[in-house]
Amino acid sequence: MFRHSQLETVQAWLAHPAHAAMPLHARIQRAIRQLILDGALGPGKPLPATRGLAQSLGVSRDTVEAAYAQLHAEGFIDRRVGSGSFVARMGEFTAGYRRPTREALRRNQAPNLSRRGNAMFHSGGVREMLQPRPFAHGVPETRAFPLQLWERLERQVLREAGTQALHHGDPQGLEALRHAIADYVNLQRGARATAERVLVLTSSQQAMTLCANMLLDPGERIFIEEPVYYGARKAFDAAGLECVPVDVDRQGIMAQKIIDDPTGAKAVFLTPSHQFPTGATLALDRRLALIDWASRHHAWIIEDDYDSEFHYAGKPTACVQGLDAHDRTIYIGTFTKSLFPGLRIGYVVLPPQLVKPMTVARTLLDGHTASIAQLTLARFMEGGHFGAHIRTMRGIYAERLEILAGLVRRHLSGLVEPQVPIGGLQMPCLLTGDIPEQEAVLAARRVGIEMLGLSSLHATGKAQAGFLMGFAAYTPEELEAAVLKLAGALKAVRRS
Amino acid sequence: MFRHSQLETVQAWLAHPAHAAMPLHARIQRAIRQLILDGALGPGKPLPATRGLAQSLGVSRDTVEAAYAQLHAEGFIDRRVGSGSFVARMGEFTAGYRRPTREALRRNQAPNLSRRGNAMFHSGGVREMLQPRPFAHGVPETRAFPLQLWERLERQVLREAGTQALHHGDPQGLEALRHAIADYVNLQRGARATAERVLVLTSSQQAMTLCANMLLDPGERIFIEEPVYYGARKAFDAAGLECVPVDVDRQGIMAQKIIDDPTGAKAVFLTPSHQFPTGATLALDRRLALIDWASRHHAWIIEDDYDSEFHYAGKPTACVQGLDAHDRTIYIGTFTKSLFPGLRIGYVVLPPQLVKPMTVARTLLDGHTASIAQLTLARFMEGGHFGAHIRTMRGIYAERLEILAGLVRRHLSGLVEPQVPIGGLQMPCLLTGDIPEQEAVLAARRVGIEMLGLSSLHATGKAQAGFLMGFAAYTPEELEAAVLKLAGALKAVRRS
Repeated sequence: MFRHSQLETVQAWLAHPAHAAMPLHARIQRAIRQLILDGALGPGKPLPATRGLAQSLGVSRDTVEAAYAQLHAEGFIDRRVGSGSFVARMGEFTAGYRRPTREALRRNQAPNLSRRGNAMFHSGGVREMLQPRPFAHGVPETRAFPLQLWERLERQVLREAGTQALHHGDPQGLEALRHAIADYVNLQRGARATAERVLVLTSSQQAMTLCANMLLDPGERIFIEEPVYYGARKAFDAAGLECVPVDVDRQGIMAQKIIDDPTGAKAVFLTPSHQFPTGATLALDRRLALIDWASRHHAWIIEDDYDSEFHYAGKPTACVQGLDAHDRTIYIGTFTKSLFPGLRIGYVVLPPQLVKPMTVARTLLDGHTASIAQLTLARFMEGGHFGAHIRTMRGIYAERLEILAGLVRRHLSGLVEPQVPIGGLQMPCLLTGDIPEQEAVLAARRVGIEMLGLSSLHATGKAQAGFLMGFAAYTPEELEAAVLKLAGALKAVRRS
Repeated sequence: MFRHSQLETVQAWLAHPAHAAMPLHARIQRAIRQLILDGALGPGKPLPATRGLAQSLGVSRDTVEAAYAQLHAEGFIDRRVGSGSFVARMGEFTAGYRRPTREALRRNQAPNLSRRGNAMFHSGGVREMLQPRPFAHGVPETRAFPLQLWERLERQVLREAGTQALHHGDPQGLEALRHAIADYVNLQRGARATAERVLVLTSSQQAMTLCANMLLDPGERIFIEEPVYYGARKAFDAAGLECVPVDVDRQGIMAQKIIDDPTGAKAVFLTPSHQFPTGATLALDRRLALIDWASRHHAWIIEDDYDSEFHYAGKPTACVQGLDAHDRTIYIGTFTKSLFPGLRIGYVVLPPQLVKPMTVARTLLDGHTASIAQLTLARFMEGGHFGAHIRTMRGIYAERLEILAGLVRRHLSGLVEPQVPIGGLQMPCLLTGDIPEQEAVLAARRVGIEMLGLSSLHATGKAQAGFLMGFAAYTPEELEAAVLKLAGALKAVRRS
C-alpha cells in the first residue's frame, strides 16, 4: 500500500549510515513517522500490512510489528482489528501536518537571538587554547601536575564518602574546601576570610558574571583597567554594564582618576597583584584610597587575584580584600592557573552581607560545583600538597621567565623589548621596530606561534604596539625553538 | 616605642585562635598592619626596634625581622639604616588612613544589590536537599550507583589521556561525549541529534539560564506551563522575562491557548514527557501544533526532558525535538537524575543556527564543563553502562512507585488521593479531606517528612490542594515508615 517512492524512502532510511546505531525496528518506525510528518502519508491513509512490508524490506514481521506498535503508542497511527493500520486523524489540530516551506526554512535559519544574546555572540566569547602552544598566555604547566597523587586522594575520599559523594552539594561549596580556601588566602594572600565568607564556583569567569549581574543593573557604570583583561570586559558587557576605562601606569590603575570622576560608578574591577596585561602591582596608597572611595560611595571593588600565586620577587603584596575593613571588596580566586584548567573550580571571598544573595543567585545559574572534584581538592589542600605544588611551579615558572627574557633579548633585539614582570604566567613585550602589531601577530601565527596583541586589550586607541608572551606552560627547549621561529617570522616581515 | 595598648593589640592577635593556622611572623605583620590601617599608628610614627619588640613579645628577633620585611615590601613602613622603621608617608593619598565610621559600617552592611540581583535573591533560588529524605522530589537513588565501575573507567581514561586531560576543554563539550549523547537521544528519545548539535553544560538549570538570556530580552514574553517547574520559572524571572502561564490538562499544555493568544510570545517552555508536576504526557497533535506555531511565528520551543529516562508504561513518546523539521526546538537533557546530582553534567541539543552563539555565550558564563568527568561519562556511555544503569533503575523506580501508591491508598485513604504517573521520580497527590495544603506540608515537615505543595507551582490561585511525593530515592521500607509517619501527622491535624 506504499507507493514505490515511499518504499524507497523507507529503504533509504534503513540504509543510511547515520542511522547505523539504531536497531532496525526503530529505523522503520522513524522512516514512517517522517512520511507522516512530511504529509506524504495523509490522515486516514492505510499503512501496508506488516507481513507485506516485512517482505518488501527483507526484514522479519516482528520487526515491522515493533515499529507499528511504537507508532501506535506515540499516536501516529490507529490500528483496527481486521482492517489494519491507518495514519491517525488528529482531533484537535490538522495544522500539524505541514511541511516547512522553503521560505520558512530560510527564515528559520537565522539564529534570531535576543539583543543581549546577539551582543554576547558577537563578543566572540572567551576562547582558550585546547592544545596550548607557545606563547599562548595564561596557561599553566600541566605536565608537571601530580596526577597520580590526585587520583590517590580521590580514591581515598570516595572510599570514605561512598555514594554520599554523589548527592547534590551545598551550593556555597563543600565546607572542608571553604575552610581550606580561607586558610590559604589568609596566610598567602593576607586576606580576611572565613569559611563562611567563601563561595565555591566553577571559575573566575563565573565569579565575574555573578558580580556583574548581582551588583549592577544594565547601563550602570563600572570602572575597568585600561588595558583590561578581556574576559572581565566581556562578562561586564554581557551583563549590559557601561565599562569606564581608567588608565594604568607602573603603579597600577590611576586611582585618582576614579576619585575625581564626577559621575562615579557602582564598582571598580581590579587585577592588583599583577595587572593584566601590564604586570604592574597596584601601589599600597592607591589600594587604600580605592577602599576609602568604595566605602564613601557605597561602591564595590571586584578584585581578580587570578595568578598571584606566582610572584617571583619576594612575597606578593597582600590582596586588597585583606586591607578593606569596610566590607566593600569581593575577592576572586581560581585554581585554573594554580592547578589545572580542566578542574573548573574557582571561588569568591565575599563581604558578609553578600554571602546569602550570591549563593542564592548561584543556584539559579547552575546549582553547585561538582562534588567529587571538591572533595579531592579539599583533601589536596589539607594535606599540604597545594602549597607544595605552588612552590614547585613558582620555581619552574621563575626560571622559564628568566630564560624567555634572555632569549627575547638575544634573538629579537631591535624588534621587541621585553617588559619582565615580577609575577604571573606571561611577559608583555613592546614592538620597538617598525612592524605593526597586527602584522607581527599574524606573521607569528603563520609559523604556529600564538601571541596576544596588546591593542585588543585597550578600549581607547592609544596602546603601544606589543604583545603578551605566555611562558609558564613551555619547557626551555620549547621556548627557545619558538623564539627562534618568531625571530625568523618577524625578520621576514621587516624585509618584505 | 609602642604604647602599652598597641602592644596588647599585637599580643591579642598572636593569641587569637582564628589566627592559629598562620606562622608567628605573619601574625605580627598582620597585627601591625592593622594598627596602621586603623590609624592607631599614624604616618611617620616610629616602630619599635626589632630587638625590643622581640623581647616584649617573647619571640625571636628573626621573627620580628621577617614581619618588618614584609611590611616594608608591601609599602606600609619605611626603613632607614641606623634610625629604624617608620610608618610610611604615602605620597598620593593620606585619605587611605581612615577608619570606617559607625555610620559607614552600618550603611555598608546593606547588600546593595542591583535590582535584578535583588529579584534573584528574593526568588529564593533553587535549593536541593543535601541529605534527601522522603518524600523529597526529583532525587534519584544514588546508593545503587556503580561507583566502583565509574572509578575504574576514570582510571582507564586518565591512563590513556594522562595530563592531557587537565587542559582547557572544548567549550562545546568533549567530542566523544557529544557523540554518545547524540546516539542516546536519537535512539531512546527519538531525537534528531548529531554530535555537532550537542552542547555539553553543567546542568539543565544552566541550559535554561542560557536560553533565557540568549533568546529573549528583558520584558519579552515566554509561555510557561501552569503549574510549572519552579527552576525554570526562576531562571526566566532572573533573566527579566515575562512568564505567561498556560493551563495544563491531562494531555499536557493546552496548545490551542498558545495558538489563539493575540499577543504571542518569543518562546514556550515545555516538559512534554512527564509534565512537572502533573506527570501528563503532551499529546502528539499538540506537539505538532506547537511546532507549527513556533515555525510560523519564528518562536522557540524549550523542551526540558528532565526525567524521561524513567517511563514505566511502554516506551516514552519521542521528544518534540525529533518531530520538529523546522529547527525551532532546543532539547534540554541532564544526567542529574539518570546518574547522580553531584556529577554536574547536562546538555542541550540545538538547532544548527544556535550552536555557535550558544557555545560562545557559554564561554562567557563559565568556560566549559570539567574535563575528567566528561571523559569518564563518555566511556561509561560508550561501554553500554549508561543504558544498563537506566534499565536497572527503571525497574527499581517502577516498583517503588507501585509500592508508594499502594501505601498511600492503604494508609492515607480519605485524606489523600494518589495520581499515579506513568513516569518520573515523583507522584502528585491531591488532598481530598479538609486539611489545607500548607498545613499538611508543615505537619509533615514537623515529623521530618518533605513534601512540595502544589500551590507554589501555580502562578494563578486556582490550584487543587495537594503535594508531590518523591519516591525514587527511598527503599520500600523507608517509604513505608514515612507513609506511616505522614498518616499519623495528617490525622493529628484533622483531629486538632
